[in-house]
Amino acid sequence: MIDKLKQAVYEANLALPKNNLVTLTWGNVSGVDRENDVMVIKPSGVSYDEMKPEDMVIVRLSDGEVIDSRLKPSSDTPTHLVLYRNFPEIGGVCHTHSRFATVFAQMGRAIPPLGTTHADYFYGEIPCTPPMKKAEIENDYEANTGEIIVREFRKKDYNVVPAVLVHEHGPFTWGNSPEKAAENAVVLEEVAFMAWHTLMLAQNSRHLLMSMDDNLLNKHFLRKHGKDAYYGQ
Amino acid sequence: MIDKLKQAVYEANLALPKNNLVTLTWGNVSGVDRENDVMVIKPSGVSYDEMKPEDMVIVRLSDGEVIDSRLKPSSDTPTHLVLYRNFPEIGGVCHTHSRFATVFAQMGRAIPPLGTTHADYFYGEIPCTPPMKKAEIENDYEANTGEIIVREFRKKDYNVVPAVLVHEHGPFTWGNSPEKAAENAVVLEEVAFMAWHTLMLAQNSRHLLMSMDDNLLNKHFLRKHGKDAYYGQ
Amino acid sequence: MIDKLKQAVYEANLALPKNNLVTLTWGNVSGVDRENDVMVIKPSGVSYDEMKPEDMVIVRLSDGEVIDSRLKPSSDTPTHLVLYRNFPEIGGVCHTHSRFATVFAQMGRAIPPLGTTHADYFYGEIPCTPPMKKAEIENDYEANTGEIIVREFRKKDYNVVPAVLVHEHGPFTWGNSPEKAAENAVVLEEVAFMAWHTLMLAQNSRHLLMSMDDNLLNKHFLRKHGKDAYYGQ
Amino acid sequence: MIDKLKQAVYEANLALPKNNLVTLTWGNVSGVDRENDVMVIKPSGVSYDEMKPEDMVIVRLSDGEVIDSRLKPSSDTPTHLVLYRNFPEIGGVCHTHSRFATVFAQMGRAIPPLGTTHADYFYGEIPCTPPMKKAEIENDYEANTGEIIVREFRKKDYNVVPAVLVHEHGPFTWGNSPEKAAENAVVLEEVAFMAWHTLMLAQNSRHLLMSMDDNLLNKHFLRKHGKDAYYGQ
Repeated sequence: MIDKLKQAVYEANLALPKNNLVTLTWGNVSGVDRENDVMVIKPSGVSYDEMKPEDMVIVRLSDGEVIDSRLKPSSDTPTHLVLYRNFPEIGGVCHTHSRFATVFAQMGRAIPPLGTTHADYFYGEIPCTPPMKKAEIENDYEANTGEIIVREFRKKDYNVVPAVLVHEHGPFTWGNSPEKAAENAVVLEEVAFMAWHTLMLAQNSRHLLMSMDDNLLNKHFLRKHGKDAYYGQ
Repeated sequence: MIDKLKQAVYEANLALPKNNLVTLTWGNVSGVDRENDVMVIKPSGVSYDEMKPEDMVIVRLSDGEVIDSRLKPSSDTPTHLVLYRNFPEIGGVCHTHSRFATVFAQMGRAIPPLGTTHADYFYGEIPCTPPMKKAEIENDYEANTGEIIVREFRKKDYNVVPAVLVHEHGPFTWGNSPEKAAENAVVLEEVAFMAWHTLMLAQNSRHLLMSMDDNLLNKHFLRKHGKDAYYGQ
Repeated sequence: MIDKLKQAVYEANLALPKNNLVTLTWGNVSGVDRENDVMVIKPSGVSYDEMKPEDMVIVRLSDGEVIDSRLKPSSDTPTHLVLYRNFPEIGGVCHTHSRFATVFAQMGRAIPPLGTTHADYFYGEIPCTPPMKKAEIENDYEANTGEIIVREFRKKDYNVVPAVLVHEHGPFTWGNSPEKAAENAVVLEEVAFMAWHTLMLAQNSRHLLMSMDDNLLNKHFLRKHGKDAYYGQ
Repeated sequence: MIDKLKQAVYEANLALPKNNLVTLTWGNVSGVDRENDVMVIKPSGVSYDEMKPEDMVIVRLSDGEVIDSRLKPSSDTPTHLVLYRNFPEIGGVCHTHSRFATVFAQMGRAIPPLGTTHADYFYGEIPCTPPMKKAEIENDYEANTGEIIVREFRKKDYNVVPAVLVHEHGPFTWGNSPEKAAENAVVLEEVAFMAWHTLMLAQNSRHLLMSMDDNLLNKHFLRKHGKDAYYGQ
């Protein structure tokens, strides 16, 4: 069971460089086994070339203790833990500094839904958190990064918008598995790339671009997700 | 005969990731055998790495019934069928979410011909459809996507402009074979990339950029296409 | 001798896809042997994957006759011939539709020297030809493309600026060998990429950007080229 | 000892093409052994494909004499030497013409810290030197390039901002080893890419973008660097 989760987390981490989402060792994916109260996450500072499934670090979900590893867990571990504790239906979390998603985060700007590529995966805009306060930054910064994400989703459904931008930092994504969390990171970057270029073209076209047509957003999201889904596998 | 068409459709689909037009499993190419009333199309949700020629799905052109496959045909099958039924001279159709073509689609803006790269393949601007209406989106959405393309070409010649942008969605291209449809998708993306960057440079240069010189457009398109073509093979 | 030239032209052509300058089969490099009155050029429409040294086509420099080949020479052959006849010191010519150089060509805008990367290879701005006239386009278009380049260099030294943009078309580069012509195409694209992004950043910075410091341009070009060169090999 | 340094310098040089920072043979990394008064640097004009560890050139740190090599040292050797002599704590220096860092250099604009990717490596803005004067360019240009960098850091700490842009030229980075100098070049390019795109998005958003939150900058830099570092290895 744990070996299977380690393997899944390992493979999801490898999907990041494969899809050009990471520079150096940046980025990490985790997975959770709620029954056994464990989270498995990428080790800190290990290069993607050398990483092996058994290097994945096992951490207790309830208190964050490292249960088994020679290696340190990713420094972002406290953020992942807060997300699992507050988003009970997710099975994987992913963090990257992928280029265009990070550009929107650096600008502090949500990514508006501008086309069906977005609507196929995200049911509405991808929000950006407000800036963190001095005290939140100075103490328990990594856990507070999770808390500010959770606050952002108090009035939003994390199941239909499985991504967020952390202000002046970068994106977090999640899903029902480590693989799905990484997949959402890939799509988020694609969507961010297209949104950035569409906004620039809108300026060139002297158009004010707000958001895509609501009917089209509904159609594309709902034909793939939810109880009446008929699209894809 | 069918095996040959399956092979051609398979190879045309592989040309998409090879030319960096697709993320994940997005994108699909089909081919048609009008004598035998069949269309062959990529299966739904199969990764490009694992796909085999025999996985291509055979669908009846006249009524859309799946004739032979363990796999489901691409979800965009109804759009492809409408195009084949209305554009009698085409032998292949391709759909992608390639980045710059999709950016123009998200903006709802046609791609103007700005240079000979465009003129070598497309005889004039590449149009963008108007938004679809609520009723068109809610019922038979995929077939209606084909219909709105067909309407866009009522007063245009689909043989000399083998590409279209579907509003807030992405591009469709076609040609006399699956291979040619995929090739047109590759060129469209190249042309869209250059048009986007030229429009930005025009703004920087404080120029209003409308379209390229008509004589040059005629020369480049007609030396490669039509009865007096002398260029290339 | 001819085999050696064929090999050099073949290798220079392969440098184009290796450096990401070409899409499909676009782009071509030629070389010249003035003593034997021959030009060797890439064949028309052959894919880079399948091309072999012996496929290079031998054409007579003085009258453009194909001397030896099963294959047709590149359709741009007349342009190459005009350049060799008018620029007596060059040994290679290269034509591509590389992305950023073509963007400047589509805009009809010269590439200003904005930094030492430019100055290391090009001694001043890279000019863009004026539009061709209707008659020039309709008759002997490919040869006239060469003529308009030659006219552009009437008051410029083709030895110190071995590149030009043809209006609404794309770049031509040259050098003392096929290899050097291709190398200049690689550097031109790099320089065009940087110029485009610098001009956009200048607009963002509300600066008017004209050209780099003359002393720095002189230093970088002259330490690598000319009689007092001391830099590099 | 020297063989180990040659190997380290060789590997750091190979990291440049691996991370897409160089075109042709541009870019160079050096390392220093202060006890033995030597600097080891990439040879001039050797392609990355053919380069071997033993090709690295040994130069005396105190007077710049080549101690051992069949090959000429990189033409930028005088710049490296000036940096080692003035920055006593560094062990490696790297110079590239990486695209976005060079774009900021061509614009003569410092790279402001706009997010945590920047703050993880650079404690504040990455400065751009003023233009060099005519006399500095005409005599001892390469050494003067080092001098103008040193002057730029008179009131700045080169240990916490291990990078600079040389006006209308390109970036230099450094670190406690050749490997670290090259790593900083990789991060600098990533940071420059994101800053460029963020500044453009800010313009699109009609925001004035100055710099990131100071508390966040402190947190991210200081949790990785300095005496209270707890993040990473």
